[in-house]
Amino acid sequence: MNKIIDLLKSHRSIRKFTDQSVSQDVINSCVAAGQAAATSSFIQACTVIQVNNSETRSSLAEWAGNQKYVDEAPIFLVFCADMNRHKLSCDMHDAEMLSGFTEQFITATVDCALFAQNVAIAAESEGLGVVYIGGIRNKIDKVSEVLNLPELSYPVFGMCIGFPDQDPEVKPRLPLEVVLKQDKYSDDQDTTRIAEYDKSIRAYYQSRTGGQKDMTWSEQISGMLQKEARPHMLSFLKSRGFLQK
Amino acid sequence: MNKIIDLLKSHRSIRKFTDQSVSQDVINSCVAAGQAAATSSFIQACTVIQVNNSETRSSLAEWAGNQKYVDEAPIFLVFCADMNRHKLSCDMHDAEMLSGFTEQFITATVDCALFAQNVAIAAESEGLGVVYIGGIRNKIDKVSEVLNLPELSYPVFGMCIGFPDQDPEVKPRLPLEVVLKQDKYSDDQDTTRIAEYDKSIRAYYQSRTGGQKDMTWSEQISGMLQKEARPHMLSFLKSRGFLQK
Repeated sequence: MNKIIDLLKSHRSIRKFTDQSVSQDVINSCVAAGQAAATSSFIQACTVIQVNNSETRSSLAEWAGNQKYVDEAPIFLVFCADMNRHKLSCDMHDAEMLSGFTEQFITATVDCALFAQNVAIAAESEGLGVVYIGGIRNKIDKVSEVLNLPELSYPVFGMCIGFPDQDPEVKPRLPLEVVLKQDKYSDDQDTTRIAEYDKSIRAYYQSRTGGQKDMTWSEQISGMLQKEARPHMLSFLKSRGFLQK
Repeated sequence: MNKIIDLLKSHRSIRKFTDQSVSQDVINSCVAAGQAAATSSFIQACTVIQVNNSETRSSLAEWAGNQKYVDEAPIFLVFCADMNRHKLSCDMHDAEMLSGFTEQFITATVDCALFAQNVAIAAESEGLGVVYIGGIRNKIDKVSEVLNLPELSYPVFGMCIGFPDQDPEVKPRLPLEVVLKQDKYSDDQDTTRIAEYDKSIRAYYQSRTGGQKDMTWSEQISGMLQKEARPHMLSFLKSRGFLQK
């Protein structure tokens, strides 16, 4: 195994950071690495908002469900799927932009995720730790407003970046056979494999919490899926010009 | 700049591959690196189908818009956003799964993209070249059928992998100031910046095609956005259990 694969496989979310600051040069370099990711038909549909203002940070931390590391991390970035610059491009050529297609929502969202994963890896390669913050979608309308996001853009997730002040274990993933299939999808053996995997997750949580958390993967997932998942999302996205057809 | 950031910034799509085969061990290692990417609330919602069958490959190449490298590449992977295993998990605990939320579509799609980007980087770190194939969404219904994909899953994109038999230039990206904003979004200067960037893209295409392709970024984007974007997508995804609310 090479060193880059080693780095990829050693990822853990970091939620506690030292006071050491992160230079703007390093952030710029990470964002440039993000830009270098593949982009669907060269659309380059990701915009990053670096949030420095402390009042905005506190609001974001609260809206994300009181995740205080959003406030505390040396750097906080918001990754936005953004087709506003495509509107500008159409305006430059007096062209009418056809928008609202679900396909465009997919390409912009995927662009943003590929970009962000490069940023995460670039940051980790510099000894930094990161955590993705999907919680900003709790209050996606307020987040969009405070960041002054235009029509045809939405905040997909945030990311805290800083030097790690904790050293959590890597969380075990599903067995390879569950996620890699040959030629055709088959889930014939997946329930058995998940039940087996559940044991390792129970052991992981027990070791990490000194026996307090007693939970398997399938329990956690099934519990989560009995609740509504941010039911405001579709109407918000439609109001921003997405998912209309 | 460190070597990992160098690697990230040197990405180009590779569409022509040598005959050298890629071992299953390398692919397994890349997919395991994919699994190590961050995953929203630990949902692990990506499934990879490795397509070896030559008849299936030919069909996929045709459906993707006659992209012959889909047929020719040593390895072809299809990345699927997959919540079928979450249904299995709910069944294991006699829990009713609430599905169809747009939020779930976002998390599964993002999970898949983060996973795939790790696979791409792992492959490139082994000297391999890759290209993402969004074209499989042209015929997303047929692709899903031939891969036997269950409800609550959809093929997001494919990826060709192999040893490069070409050495294209890195494509210049938008100026950093267009994609990285401080505290609030502002596009006041973006039209000017895009016009400036257009010059470098025109030069890039001219150099790459011996003067034949004379096109800027904003022209390309504005041309593309005057056409409908895979208008079948929303009804297909709804039929698979996604984006219903």
